[in-house]
Amino acid sequence: MHYPNGKKNHHIRQPAAANRSQAFGNRGMTLEADINATNTYYRDINKANIHKKPTPVQVVNVHYPRRSAAVITEGYFKQPSTTDYNGVYRGRHIDFEAKETKNKTRFPLANIHGHQIEHMKSITKHGGICFLIIRFSVYKETYYIPAETFFPFWDEQFNNGKKSIPYETIRCKGYRIPFHYQARVDFLAIIDQLYF
Amino acid sequence: MHYPNGKKNHHIRQPAAANRSQAFGNRGMTLEADINATNTYYRDINKANIHKKPTPVQVVNVHYPRRSAAVITEGYFKQPSTTDYNGVYRGRHIDFEAKETKNKTRFPLANIHGHQIEHMKSITKHGGICFLIIRFSVYKETYYIPAETFFPFWDEQFNNGKKSIPYETIRCKGYRIPFHYQARVDFLAIIDQLYF
Repeated sequence: MHYPNGKKNHHIRQPAAANRSQAFGNRGMTLEADINATNTYYRDINKANIHKKPTPVQVVNVHYPRRSAAVITEGYFKQPSTTDYNGVYRGRHIDFEAKETKNKTRFPLANIHGHQIEHMKSITKHGGICFLIIRFSVYKETYYIPAETFFPFWDEQFNNGKKSIPYETIRCKGYRIPFHYQARVDFLAIIDQLYF
Repeated sequence: MHYPNGKKNHHIRQPAAANRSQAFGNRGMTLEADINATNTYYRDINKANIHKKPTPVQVVNVHYPRRSAAVITEGYFKQPSTTDYNGVYRGRHIDFEAKETKNKTRFPLANIHGHQIEHMKSITKHGGICFLIIRFSVYKETYYIPAETFFPFWDEQFNNGKKSIPYETIRCKGYRIPFHYQARVDFLAIIDQLYF
């Protein structure tokens, strides 16, 4: 990167992971970055309008300097009460949560919060298309799990059931999401199969 | 409010407007507060699942004290690139923006940002139900304006058109949203008329 003084800028920190991943077509990006890139692509080609919701912040103190933007000087991250992503595709409401795990053998249910499940049950009841995207980062595999498939596993844990879903179960009951260069997590390909 | 020491707390600031409005059944609440109350009611009775999106914050600095929550010590409010509210009702995607004006004769288009209009056009194209809620606070009147009705007024301003929509036009082309005690801005009543 060149700056106006003609010198290269050596001060911007490049995360090592980002450099490394460039050699592999950015396959090493986080799930969130991949989904954001996918949603941007879907919007650019007018395929769907899906966004990540902003992280909720509890603003406690704001400083208003003269002639410049307000500065939040004290704020706290709040627990989201909904899922992270929603939007519209082919007239249908889309709503999902995305999680990646380094675990090789199972997806721990502790990754999801109870109020998110309540939200997903409500969305499903109102006719939205609701699902989870789960990535096993060690295998670089990303799965689409319909919310209706996920709920029984969630509910069962309170009935002396397991606190996790085995990897094999997710492979079997979920749908492997294809990777494309632009639609990096092409979940609409699965929705097309399941709903249209 | 009683605190553990048994003394009433006189230090919590009660906004004057909130006190005053209690005598009038809270009709003096802001449009945002009314819509949030309405959406909570809709969720409570399982009628619809609609939320306000969190205000986007650009987090610049976070302090991590030992044994307590992370504190944002420098952050800035970002311009939202979408509308403020969305969700699902009777299987349809719902997306809207809400604005109130103290103006008595017109709604200034400067209340809306260009990228919000782009977003609303995209949502409409993808089959979502998209609209504006506009309150003339002086008259305590709240209107539902379908996005498709709003767009020509927006576009016309760049063609030597007016920079505002007259109050009479909104009365004529919009739909007055009824006030109910719990559904304070009962916009789903209008959607029921228009779409179902």
